[in-house]
Amino acid sequence: MDDVTKHNSPQTGIWITYGIGVYDITSFVPKHPGSDKVMLAAGSAIDPFWHIYQQHNTKEVLKLLETFRIGNLKEDDVIGTKDLDNPWATEPKRHPILKAATQRPFNAEPPASVLVDSFLTPNEFFYVRNHLPVPEVNIEEYELEIDVELNDKSKRLSFEELKKLPKHTVTATIMCGGNRRGEMMEIKPIKGLPWGPSAVGNAEWSGVRLVDLLKEMGVESDETSHVHFEGLDTDPTHTPYAASIPLSKAMDPRGDVILAYEMNGQPLNRDHGYPLRAIVPGVVGSRNVKWLGRIVVSKDESDSHWQQNDYKSFSPSTDWDTVDFKRAPAIQNMPITSAICTPANGDRLEAKDGYITVKGYAWSGGGQAIIRVDLSVDGGNSWIVADLDQVEQGTGRGRHWSWSLWTAKIPVKRGQKIEIWSKAVDDNYNAQPETFKNIWNLRGVVGNAYSRVKVEVK
Amino acid sequence: MDDVTKHNSPQTGIWITYGIGVYDITSFVPKHPGSDKVMLAAGSAIDPFWHIYQQHNTKEVLKLLETFRIGNLKEDDVIGTKDLDNPWATEPKRHPILKAATQRPFNAEPPASVLVDSFLTPNEFFYVRNHLPVPEVNIEEYELEIDVELNDKSKRLSFEELKKLPKHTVTATIMCGGNRRGEMMEIKPIKGLPWGPSAVGNAEWSGVRLVDLLKEMGVESDETSHVHFEGLDTDPTHTPYAASIPLSKAMDPRGDVILAYEMNGQPLNRDHGYPLRAIVPGVVGSRNVKWLGRIVVSKDESDSHWQQNDYKSFSPSTDWDTVDFKRAPAIQNMPITSAICTPANGDRLEAKDGYITVKGYAWSGGGQAIIRVDLSVDGGNSWIVADLDQVEQGTGRGRHWSWSLWTAKIPVKRGQKIEIWSKAVDDNYNAQPETFKNIWNLRGVVGNAYSRVKVEVK
Repeated sequence: MDDVTKHNSPQTGIWITYGIGVYDITSFVPKHPGSDKVMLAAGSAIDPFWHIYQQHNTKEVLKLLETFRIGNLKEDDVIGTKDLDNPWATEPKRHPILKAATQRPFNAEPPASVLVDSFLTPNEFFYVRNHLPVPEVNIEEYELEIDVELNDKSKRLSFEELKKLPKHTVTATIMCGGNRRGEMMEIKPIKGLPWGPSAVGNAEWSGVRLVDLLKEMGVESDETSHVHFEGLDTDPTHTPYAASIPLSKAMDPRGDVILAYEMNGQPLNRDHGYPLRAIVPGVVGSRNVKWLGRIVVSKDESDSHWQQNDYKSFSPSTDWDTVDFKRAPAIQNMPITSAICTPANGDRLEAKDGYITVKGYAWSGGGQAIIRVDLSVDGGNSWIVADLDQVEQGTGRGRHWSWSLWTAKIPVKRGQKIEIWSKAVDDNYNAQPETFKNIWNLRGVVGNAYSRVKVEVK
Repeated sequence: MDDVTKHNSPQTGIWITYGIGVYDITSFVPKHPGSDKVMLAAGSAIDPFWHIYQQHNTKEVLKLLETFRIGNLKEDDVIGTKDLDNPWATEPKRHPILKAATQRPFNAEPPASVLVDSFLTPNEFFYVRNHLPVPEVNIEEYELEIDVELNDKSKRLSFEELKKLPKHTVTATIMCGGNRRGEMMEIKPIKGLPWGPSAVGNAEWSGVRLVDLLKEMGVESDETSHVHFEGLDTDPTHTPYAASIPLSKAMDPRGDVILAYEMNGQPLNRDHGYPLRAIVPGVVGSRNVKWLGRIVVSKDESDSHWQQNDYKSFSPSTDWDTVDFKRAPAIQNMPITSAICTPANGDRLEAKDGYITVKGYAWSGGGQAIIRVDLSVDGGNSWIVADLDQVEQGTGRGRHWSWSLWTAKIPVKRGQKIEIWSKAVDDNYNAQPETFKNIWNLRGVVGNAYSRVKVEVK
């Protein structure tokens, strides 16, 4: 273990232990999606980390790890995880409709077909993207801390105090940055959760307007500062999940950022951030921080792993050997996308009066309205314009925060095999790119190519 | 002529005269890009209109017209244009580098290769898109009229008074809604000017902030009203060129809308709107109204032809028989685009040290920053990231109004024939769509597909 401890940097070589094994992972670290996270374990045991990041407990990962084995610890030096608290002991119960990509942390989405059944996604069907164990919060002791580094003011608010402030409601879609990664992975493998098209949901969120709180603390908007959100969920080094948004978004009354304690009229449930979460309309899910414990207004962007070294996209030819995370901005507003939710890929369907019905959602981050969804079943030679069933009204230009659900009837013939494409257009006249091939990126994020579903007509 | 006069509606049939000829154009009107404009001439002579809209004076149009001929006027009834004032007599001189698509009205763009030579486009090289004859303005008599219908306030400002107000400078790209229509026309014909990629330019504009003027007149922002801009250029019915933008854009201090009297430090020249034009950063050129005579703040959007029945986009399968202009919003913010400016399509080039140099621009309306331009010469199998030479700094998130110019070096072999693709990505991670085929629209606007240039290496 003494030897291991000395190997904790690229210069000395990077060694870690797992159980009794000692591994030299120097060459692997730059290729690991969270290489800054790995470095926290450099020169020590990774067992406590993998106790949290249980997505590593797969045959593939253990097999890869063994290729780096250079020796064994003395029996007495083995740490293991027997004595660690079990941070997973108090995970909430989930609705069985949620298909889990990983159980610990819990990451799950509903079947796409349920999304199009309601403009507001029922809380229990709403996708869950947790990065760490769900924290337990004692509401009597809970306090939100706000620190304004710009003017050195601080404030602590109990949950009761927060609820006494004026209540605002915003209807907004939240989408995971990795939504539809599964489709992108078909082009070339990606390290990450293989999300389908359902890492997205739409809800009515109620809480306190962030701009009101910050104004009250003397914050004035500027073009360069940031607002950090820190969760109460922490990793083995006690670092909280954190992310930041530009101050100009937070301070814009038309930006509609709120600290929500209700989701669709119910108190937030534990998976969605009880007791308080940030709702940043139009912005990628990872900035809508759950279990909000602290807000910091700072000259600098959050230095958290998830802000700096994840949730960014690159050229399709950028790989783990060449990537420089500093060269891309953290995802904020999400690009335009749509997905066909029903039928599902591979379905065999009955036509009704010569038609099949296709349903899906379309959404554009940044508050852009969906103005049209075009479908093609002949490779783009002709297009059918879908009906927008539930046209998202929004509260003004650039404040269209909810998705639009749509329906189209497609004329078909018996025995026909078709590939259905969907392409959405927003009111900036941005349209989806056509293929995942040309937007593929090593993190598998912002995957907004045409949705393509193959079906056969009975 | 008495008979003609009676045929002035779809119910009676639509007759018009041209020279001595009488034409029944009932079936053609719905297929004409400006069918509401045509109706102004219903039951009368089109000669005065074509005197203004001289783009009709082509063999193709006259041939088409003849297919509708149903008879002749009596000699005495012929109107002709001999007695009309010549509204074209006072057109300004233009730099010969501007390649005119039409002379009357003057519509012209520079060669693409000059665009990439400077971040600020020289005034004389800046594309010109006129809809009507350039008006002559006597600066001593000039007045800007502002009418706020919301509170019944009005105001008139002389040019001297305008220049005494605080002066603001904004660097912004202006792009024609039909930029790159020529590439779209290769897919399927479109009625409209066959613009190349140079109906765009970037300049420093100085003038008065619109929000300051409107606040002074007691205007408060709301989410549903509009600001109309009326030009001093008028059609034969004395209707001015006009367009509108949402009031929320005009009133947003971060929207940077100005009434400009200077372009790159010089007084506006006549082609660019002397003495005053609207600069609406991030928004399609047609709302940046030139020769500004009147501003109206209204509950309603402008009912002008160019707002309601032009500068909108539709599904590729929508044609002149099925189009309903009410179903699409007027283009405001432009979508992300890029274009390869040099080499030109069809060039034969010498390689230097095994490389050729490719240059172009990238721009995204709505103030989104360009974060990356990817190039491919192998159909998207691999991508080269271009250098952003002149990174547009902007004045904050969502206030990146200028284009970014870029350069890439492409490794090539002697005798190689390649097709170069460019694809830009903005900070909402919106990317260009791949093909014109799938975004084709009957007006040929917002043509933002990948730029594709075929070259041969000597």
